[in-house]
Amino acid sequence: MEYETVELDDKDDALVIIDQTKLPGKTEIIRLKTAQEMWDAIYLLKVRGAPAIGVAAAFGIYLLAKQIDTADYSTFLAEFRKQKEYLDSSRPTAVNLSWALKRMEKIVTDNRDKSVEEIKRLLKAEADAIKAEDIRVCKTIGEFGLTLVKPGDGILTHCNAGQLATSKYGTATAPIYLGEERGYHFRVFADETRPLLQGARLTSYELHSSGVDVTLICDNMAATVMKNGWVDAVFVGCDRVARNGDTANKIGTSSVAIAANYYNVPVYICAPTSTIDMNTATGADIHIEERPAEEVTQMWYRERMAPEGVKVYNPAFDVTDHSLIAGIVTEYGIAREPYEESFREIFARKENAEYD
Amino acid sequence: MEYETVELDDKDDALVIIDQTKLPGKTEIIRLKTAQEMWDAIYLLKVRGAPAIGVAAAFGIYLLAKQIDTADYSTFLAEFRKQKEYLDSSRPTAVNLSWALKRMEKIVTDNRDKSVEEIKRLLKAEADAIKAEDIRVCKTIGEFGLTLVKPGDGILTHCNAGQLATSKYGTATAPIYLGEERGYHFRVFADETRPLLQGARLTSYELHSSGVDVTLICDNMAATVMKNGWVDAVFVGCDRVARNGDTANKIGTSSVAIAANYYNVPVYICAPTSTIDMNTATGADIHIEERPAEEVTQMWYRERMAPEGVKVYNPAFDVTDHSLIAGIVTEYGIAREPYEESFREIFARKENAEYD
Repeated sequence: MEYETVELDDKDDALVIIDQTKLPGKTEIIRLKTAQEMWDAIYLLKVRGAPAIGVAAAFGIYLLAKQIDTADYSTFLAEFRKQKEYLDSSRPTAVNLSWALKRMEKIVTDNRDKSVEEIKRLLKAEADAIKAEDIRVCKTIGEFGLTLVKPGDGILTHCNAGQLATSKYGTATAPIYLGEERGYHFRVFADETRPLLQGARLTSYELHSSGVDVTLICDNMAATVMKNGWVDAVFVGCDRVARNGDTANKIGTSSVAIAANYYNVPVYICAPTSTIDMNTATGADIHIEERPAEEVTQMWYRERMAPEGVKVYNPAFDVTDHSLIAGIVTEYGIAREPYEESFREIFARKENAEYD
Repeated sequence: MEYETVELDDKDDALVIIDQTKLPGKTEIIRLKTAQEMWDAIYLLKVRGAPAIGVAAAFGIYLLAKQIDTADYSTFLAEFRKQKEYLDSSRPTAVNLSWALKRMEKIVTDNRDKSVEEIKRLLKAEADAIKAEDIRVCKTIGEFGLTLVKPGDGILTHCNAGQLATSKYGTATAPIYLGEERGYHFRVFADETRPLLQGARLTSYELHSSGVDVTLICDNMAATVMKNGWVDAVFVGCDRVARNGDTANKIGTSSVAIAANYYNVPVYICAPTSTIDMNTATGADIHIEERPAEEVTQMWYRERMAPEGVKVYNPAFDVTDHSLIAGIVTEYGIAREPYEESFREIFARKENAEYD
């Protein structure tokens, strides 16, 4: 792709993103400066995908902290927290949003003995690190994912856990991009992903423009594609993983997982360890965001597709039971049943790596 | 509803239908006179739903036969067959289309000793009978369907097997309408049904305007609605039933059926006996119509939702395996496993009834 999904323009004090609601018709780069603009961009899905939201929030809170005009630590901290809580309220399900904001807050509280100016420099360094880590994490997820498939395989994906959802490579698409570089020539099926069509607008766009063999289908065709024997593995991204391996993913993922299990197709969830929330016991404890009816009844809030006044249920995510998941691919290896144990090993590996 | 789905205007030689591609925005009544207009209306889904297509084809072939300007039987028969084959080519999957046209042809061949004028009169009577039977059949399916649910139940339906798919009552909606008359107060969930949104545009429209408690969802939310415990039964219509009980239904039905079985929700297929094709051994023998990519990539052939040039797979139907079906509701009772035996009993009941 020509542009990066999320960039910091430190000279102009702007968070620079591709407005993903305009794709694939138009590649529009927008510059966000105020807290309200950043909140709106996340809420309205101009920037979306758990890792990209994390990076955007980190750059965003840095820019907002930079504008706090005080040398007094307590005043700075109070204002920082107010802004942080505001950004944190934009999307409730994605754990990366609060994870990134908490990491940024830790810089502030760990360095209370330093000057506010110095803290601002450290915040920038941390946000840069979050982005660099995101790129490295996605690439490593791609390497592990690639061990689960073979050249020529059919891969089905849902929503967009692609480059546009991260800083680079994507999570679910990382094995696809790495495989493409190495001549694997996967046949990819992209669910369009109603109501906001991230699969049609974003995944099929980014894969097609990278030369990947991608076929777009409606969500309700996934079971038929599997029945036809065209799918060897499902790779999807993820918004939050509970301790028992239940995962919250884009709405429709659980339906894909149930059909895949029915047709004996393995389901792999690509999840950076930042997405694994050991404080959440099971999927039942994950708060599922409900979004406006108009996303379903109108196309882009314009033409009505359903009668006026009809009731609508519009959950943005669903929970896929751990029993339906063949493996959760992280940057420190592939977690398998029993997941809690497997996650502890992965976190131990991560800690060791960080001490290296 | 204010208008009938399919009507004959014998004085004006017109087949009168509601253009369902304009709903719910606009109720446009169109008058079809030429074979080309009729073929287009069926192909473009201006009239759709297996029973309604059957009734439209019967009135249509009558009107085309009426225009054949000859008193010579062989000339009449040859021209009739040409028109019949043309109409028959408009949709390959729905068995009612060829079933209705064959019934009309039988009138012509059974009455070769009569005058062409008399045959034309008999053709009109047969088309009227097909419509009257459709209404009676739907009502009886509703009565049998109603025995499978209880007041207050949650019912999920896919696509539109409603009034707009038939002459009256619908098939899958018949138990809902009859239940509503009797104070059952079902809570209905309507899948929007991509790509053409028959659930959003037609089912939620006709149920909502009849005062039924209906909630519209995207297809990929059906599994979540079931997981939430909101669905006690799935009722869907059907385009063709094979001898072993496999059914061809609107694309996405098999996905609903797999999820319903996973959550222990019974799946009932509402199918007039005219839909049961004892000459088709299994679902694998049913030809599945594939439709244009633009139905998926563009909204009503206008705004693009996917990048130019991306590959698309767009099957209009899928096959639901008989093992996923709890019962097939016909106008002569509910067929159950083993289906072939059960169908034979139902056809025996039908034959007896016809001799009454």
